[in-house]
Amino acid sequence: MKQEFLKACRREETDYTPVWLMRQAGRYMPEYMAIRSKHSFLEMCKTPELAAEVTLQPVDIVGVDAAILFADILLPLEGMGISLEFAKDEGPVIHNPVRSKQDVDKIRILEAEEGTPYVMEAIRILRRELVNKVPLIGFSGAPFTLASYIIEGGGSKTYLNCKRMMYEAPGVWHSLMEKVSEVIIRYLKAQIAAGAQAVQVFDSWVGCLAPDDYREFVLPHSRRVMEGLQGTGVPIIHFANNASTLLPVVREAGGDVIGLDWRTDLDAAWARLGYDVAVQGNLEPLALFAPPAVIEKKVKRILSQAAKRPGHIFNLGHGIHKDTPVENVRVLVEAVHKYSRMPLEELRED
Amino acid sequence: MKQEFLKACRREETDYTPVWLMRQAGRYMPEYMAIRSKHSFLEMCKTPELAAEVTLQPVDIVGVDAAILFADILLPLEGMGISLEFAKDEGPVIHNPVRSKQDVDKIRILEAEEGTPYVMEAIRILRRELVNKVPLIGFSGAPFTLASYIIEGGGSKTYLNCKRMMYEAPGVWHSLMEKVSEVIIRYLKAQIAAGAQAVQVFDSWVGCLAPDDYREFVLPHSRRVMEGLQGTGVPIIHFANNASTLLPVVREAGGDVIGLDWRTDLDAAWARLGYDVAVQGNLEPLALFAPPAVIEKKVKRILSQAAKRPGHIFNLGHGIHKDTPVENVRVLVEAVHKYSRMPLEELRED
Repeated sequence: MKQEFLKACRREETDYTPVWLMRQAGRYMPEYMAIRSKHSFLEMCKTPELAAEVTLQPVDIVGVDAAILFADILLPLEGMGISLEFAKDEGPVIHNPVRSKQDVDKIRILEAEEGTPYVMEAIRILRRELVNKVPLIGFSGAPFTLASYIIEGGGSKTYLNCKRMMYEAPGVWHSLMEKVSEVIIRYLKAQIAAGAQAVQVFDSWVGCLAPDDYREFVLPHSRRVMEGLQGTGVPIIHFANNASTLLPVVREAGGDVIGLDWRTDLDAAWARLGYDVAVQGNLEPLALFAPPAVIEKKVKRILSQAAKRPGHIFNLGHGIHKDTPVENVRVLVEAVHKYSRMPLEELRED
Repeated sequence: MKQEFLKACRREETDYTPVWLMRQAGRYMPEYMAIRSKHSFLEMCKTPELAAEVTLQPVDIVGVDAAILFADILLPLEGMGISLEFAKDEGPVIHNPVRSKQDVDKIRILEAEEGTPYVMEAIRILRRELVNKVPLIGFSGAPFTLASYIIEGGGSKTYLNCKRMMYEAPGVWHSLMEKVSEVIIRYLKAQIAAGAQAVQVFDSWVGCLAPDDYREFVLPHSRRVMEGLQGTGVPIIHFANNASTLLPVVREAGGDVIGLDWRTDLDAAWARLGYDVAVQGNLEPLALFAPPAVIEKKVKRILSQAAKRPGHIFNLGHGIHKDTPVENVRVLVEAVHKYSRMPLEELRED
C-alpha cells in the first residue's frame, strides 16, 4: 500500500507530496454519473457495494494517494430521530428541526453499527479492495456543522436560528452539541474499528462564526470529539471551511492535520498554526478549470510555500466542482507528484 | 454637525467612538417598509426625494453618527449598457452578461451625472437636510464586485465564470476591470462633487479569491480606484467582505479606513494592517438578535480590542439583517456611545 498519505499525516518524510481531493468521488466523473443515473444519492450511500465502487473510482482514474469513503455527513442523523430527505436540487431538508429543550431531549444516541451499519460495511469492503493500493479515509461532520443542519432544517445563508439559540438559550445549545458530539465520537470510532485508516472531521459551515463565539460555543465540543478519538492511533484531519481567520482556535480544538481553505496562503497559515501540526490544502478548487500551465504554476506555488517541510498533504481548499474536467484533475495529481520531487530551489526558480 | 465619524476616518481623537451600520436604511425599519410598500426598490433608488427620505430615517430613529446614501451598488451598470432587473426574491438579474472581448468592447463609459443623475440629486438634497446633523457617506461597488455581477449575470455561489475568464482570458478580464474602474472613479468623484463627505468602496464578493489571484487580478484595479480619488480630500473606506485573510493585500490597494468583517478579532486584524490606517467594524450582525446584555458584552469586547486607539469606527461586520429588532439596534448604538467614553481599564474589568 502507498504509504505517503499516512506518513505525511504523521509528519514523516515522504518521497513526494501525497494528494487527494475533497469530494473526489463525485459528479465530475462520468463513471460516477453512470451509477448515479440508476440510483438516488441516498440509495448509493446506503448500498455498501455502490458506495465502495464510487469510492474506488478516483484511485484508479486520477491516481490519488488516498481514498475517502463515499458517504454524506448527514447519514448519522436518521439514527438520532431526525427526519432527513434529499430534495431534488434543494439539498438536504430536515422535517423536524430542533429548536427547543424538548426537541433536544428527544434526540437518540445509537451505536453507529446500529444507526449506520451500511457505512461500516462499505468500509470493510473497501479495505479488502484497497489492499496494495492506498489508505482509506473515513469522515464525519463536526459538531457545529451537524448541529447547524439539525437546527436550521437544512442549509442556511445566515445560520440565524443557530445563533439565536447560542445567544438566547446557551444551555439548550450546549446540550444539543453534547449529544451531537457523542454521536460523532461513536460514528468515527466505529469507522476506525471497521478499518478507516484516517478520519477527517468536516466543519463545513463554522466559518460563519466570530472567533469569540467559536471559542464559547464550538471549541469545547470539537475538542471533546478530537480527545474522544485519541488512543485509536489513527490520524485525525480537522477541516474548518472558510474559517482561516479562526485557525488558531481551530488548532486548539485539535487534530493531527489541519485543513486549509484557499483564501489563505499556505505558508502564512502554517506559520500561524505552528509546525508541530500537519496541514492539508489548499488549491482554489476552480483553478481546475484553468489551462494546464496555470494549474501547474499554482501547484508549484503551493509546494514552494510548503517548503518541503514534512507534514503537507496536497488537496483542494474545498470540494471539487461538479463540472470540473477530469483531464485537469489528472494534470493536478501528476503535477503534485512531479514537482514535489523537485528540489526546492528549482521549484522556486521556475 | 457631529464630527466624530470624520475625525475617526482621519485617525484623530474623538470624545466617543462613532457608529453607523451597513444597510442601516433598510427593511428592518417599519418606516422604511412603509415607503417600500408603495414603491419598487429601483423606483426608490431613482427618486431622489425617496432615497433621501430613507437615508435620513436611521439618523433620527437609531442615532447613528453618519448617514449612508440609500442606493444600490448596481445602479451605474445601466449607463454602461448592461440590462439590469431586480427580479422578485431573486436579487439582481443581468440579461446580457459579459463573457467575451466583444462584450467588453460594447461597454460604455458615461459621466456619472449622465448615467445616474438621481444619485447626485439625492446627495444634494441630503446635504441640505443633514446640516447640523451628521456627515453623509457615498458609496460604490469595488471593481471585482461590479465585474462579478456583470460576468455572472447576477449573484453567484462559485464565481466560476469570473474565474474562468481570469484563468483563460486574462486580457479580457483586465480590459473589463479597467472599464469598470473608470466608471467607479467617475461615479465616486461625482458623488463627492455633489456633497458626499466620505465614500465607501464595497468589495462584497472578493472573499471568494485566493490571495495570489487577488494580487494578480484585482489589486491593480482597486488600487487605481483609490489613487483616482486621492486629491478629493475625502476619506475612503475600503471594505472587502469575507476577506479577512486578504487584509494585507487589501491594504495595499489603499483606503483611509479598512472595513473588517466579523470573522476576525479586531485587535489581531488592526495589528496586521498596521496602526497607520483606520479600521471599521466588526460586530457579528446577528448579535443584534441577542438579548441586550449579550449585545453590550460584545460591544465592550470590540471597544476594548480597539483599545482607544484613534481611528476606530464602530460598525457591523456585514449589512444589518432584515429581521433585526429596531430596539436592539438602539441598544447597540447607545452601548457604543456609552462604553467608548469609559476608561479602558473599566471597560476591560467588566
